[in-house]
Amino acid sequence: MKIVASTDRAFVSALKKVVSRARMQGAAVERTVRTLLQAVERGGDAAVLRYTKQFDKVALKASELKVTSEEIKDAYHRIRKDEGDALRFAAQRIAAFHERQRTKTWMYQDGEATLGQVVTPIDAVGLYVPGGKAVYPSTVLMSAIPAKVAGVSRIVMCTPPQKDGINPYLLVAADIAGVTDIFRVGGVQAVGALAFGTKSIPKVDKIVGPGNIYVATAKRLLYGTVGVDMVAGPSELLVVADGDAKPAHVAADLLCEAEHDEDAQVWLVTTSASLAKNVGRLLEQQLRGLQREKIAAKSVARHSVAFVVTTMDEAIEVANQIAPEHLTLSVDQPFDYLEKIRHAGALFLGRYTPPSVADYIAGPNHVLPTGGTAKFFSALSVLDYLKVSNIVHYTKEELSKVKDHLIRFAHIEGFDAHAKSAQSRFA
Amino acid sequence: MKIVASTDRAFVSALKKVVSRARMQGAAVERTVRTLLQAVERGGDAAVLRYTKQFDKVALKASELKVTSEEIKDAYHRIRKDEGDALRFAAQRIAAFHERQRTKTWMYQDGEATLGQVVTPIDAVGLYVPGGKAVYPSTVLMSAIPAKVAGVSRIVMCTPPQKDGINPYLLVAADIAGVTDIFRVGGVQAVGALAFGTKSIPKVDKIVGPGNIYVATAKRLLYGTVGVDMVAGPSELLVVADGDAKPAHVAADLLCEAEHDEDAQVWLVTTSASLAKNVGRLLEQQLRGLQREKIAAKSVARHSVAFVVTTMDEAIEVANQIAPEHLTLSVDQPFDYLEKIRHAGALFLGRYTPPSVADYIAGPNHVLPTGGTAKFFSALSVLDYLKVSNIVHYTKEELSKVKDHLIRFAHIEGFDAHAKSAQSRFA
Repeated sequence: MKIVASTDRAFVSALKKVVSRARMQGAAVERTVRTLLQAVERGGDAAVLRYTKQFDKVALKASELKVTSEEIKDAYHRIRKDEGDALRFAAQRIAAFHERQRTKTWMYQDGEATLGQVVTPIDAVGLYVPGGKAVYPSTVLMSAIPAKVAGVSRIVMCTPPQKDGINPYLLVAADIAGVTDIFRVGGVQAVGALAFGTKSIPKVDKIVGPGNIYVATAKRLLYGTVGVDMVAGPSELLVVADGDAKPAHVAADLLCEAEHDEDAQVWLVTTSASLAKNVGRLLEQQLRGLQREKIAAKSVARHSVAFVVTTMDEAIEVANQIAPEHLTLSVDQPFDYLEKIRHAGALFLGRYTPPSVADYIAGPNHVLPTGGTAKFFSALSVLDYLKVSNIVHYTKEELSKVKDHLIRFAHIEGFDAHAKSAQSRFA
Repeated sequence: MKIVASTDRAFVSALKKVVSRARMQGAAVERTVRTLLQAVERGGDAAVLRYTKQFDKVALKASELKVTSEEIKDAYHRIRKDEGDALRFAAQRIAAFHERQRTKTWMYQDGEATLGQVVTPIDAVGLYVPGGKAVYPSTVLMSAIPAKVAGVSRIVMCTPPQKDGINPYLLVAADIAGVTDIFRVGGVQAVGALAFGTKSIPKVDKIVGPGNIYVATAKRLLYGTVGVDMVAGPSELLVVADGDAKPAHVAADLLCEAEHDEDAQVWLVTTSASLAKNVGRLLEQQLRGLQREKIAAKSVARHSVAFVVTTMDEAIEVANQIAPEHLTLSVDQPFDYLEKIRHAGALFLGRYTPPSVADYIAGPNHVLPTGGTAKFFSALSVLDYLKVSNIVHYTKEELSKVKDHLIRFAHIEGFDAHAKSAQSRFA
């Protein structure tokens, strides 16, 4: 781990490099992605099947796209009972947290007028679940359960076909979470099928979930045609630690994110130069023998930085500039700092909150803004599956009270039909 | 206005045409927009000034981009006192409504764990305000006031330069609403400047506001680099009316939207064939002599449809399929239907709620999803200017209780560093 102190010249440039890690993405792949999307829009199932054969090397018929209820039942037999219990335990806690995010319709009287908001669930959502080496049943729970809590009636999951069948943990997690339809289709063709609908795959109103650069670009190009969630990038963790933090715990926490992806980014910001040194040393030690040692080692070598600062205020300021996906605050009184932290996807407070407890068990969502986008995006939540309609109800008397201001405003903007629509009620 | 009855064959195809009005947008202009954005990212002020000269035909120096406090003061003298009063009256009511949308940080205990959400305002937002023939000080109020209520500290407005100075109503509205910086720059160059920052124009975290297809495409391409609001299209109004609705009021309401834009779309859904006929006739009459007669006439001729149905349930179902930006419910007991309406940007209830009272005075936001996107987008709100960070705090004892499930889950996903980060606390 590279160590820079705030007294070094290298500090500013190292920080600047981290802060500017988010860039306008995917220009190069836009044209390819658009071509694929248009082909799926026009060609429907036939295009989906063609691309599945071309990119996933799996030949399917349209009738085979949908995962059957027998396959889902079978998946339960392919996992251990204690594994199923862990999935259910997590699901319950995720549901309990997200229940608290539900918002309700409200109205109030303003004179004789009634104003308010009606909150309704989105009708149908699509969840994209990547295939690949690592599979994330936890993310299936985190994406689907808030939709279920919101009251979404159709939750459609797409995941790339696998030669030996879809990972049973994904199927069990989807079933526990209340996913209504599962299709073995991945990549841009899955995103396009969800956006436009095909004979086999229903059109949805919003598409949620992480994916590679092609999937992310497809979602971005479709923004506004359907709803999409935030743009996901590689995992990040920034640990703010004082001199009393245990180096072994800090190193173990940093490796939680580093093992996700070679491009995962982990940072330490600390007031203790010796902590930084010890964490750096322990990182190298703890890396050895990990199942995903190579990936974690590359992430650490490429991206990890320890920023040594002089005060905790300075540490928090560095964290705010970076706006990390995950921010661990390893201090004795973490709640004292809460007001100063402006940007982070999630905050792990104190000495006994490893990232893994939040990833799997605690309940708050682990789908979080990366790449500095915590400055404007939020953790995935029930709100992402709801929408709000404003309501306005006037009586004749109340309308007559505000009529003059209304007419004046209409004339300011040069819209006399606006003025007349109010006047016509009094003609 | 074209009239189709649910007994006609033409009904289904007319409805289908309206329902499918939203398409994947702007493929043709993407390349141009990307080139402009990249030029602004690299060239900063120089590129902004070059494009301002090229597209807006106004030659400016960098020092002239920012609107001065003298110009704002002067704008107050260029409008009448009663006009200023109308702007202030609207601003107060918009603020009062949006105060109710503010959400707060919350936490709760789950055993010894503390879970919750921290709500913080976005640091800096950019408002795009179009120039052109029609100016919308109302939209300045509707975009800026929720940001102010949310606690956004920097609210930057960009609007195209005009040869005779920026419209004074826009400047006064911006000043009343709490905009902190105003720049005379429009188009893609404004969006790029706000996204990347230049020497003169500060980088913001989120860009909000309507614009032409170039501005809309720029926002879509930048989605994820910065936050953006919904994608805005032409105005829409669908009136659901029973046989007791006054045809003159319905026609006047429809013209409120038609006068915005030749591509504005207005529809009537009614159980009364005679109402449809009378509204059609009165539309033609009321059009005559409007300031914007030509625009409204084109909108009506091109897009207006009256759907005649047999029951109110059928009428609501048509409305739900169309998911209009504005939905007027002209019946005596509008609240009885509220539960059945699933998709609409805003609902205008009863006989005395013309669109204009909601556009200017009522208080709820008039920046609303168009083109069927009310199926997944919501009215602009204070939430668009806030973000949420999840918080998780575990104690050693609470962590030990959930440890086994956590470790099992980590092994399901093949992440042993995740398991170890929890285990390390008990080593």
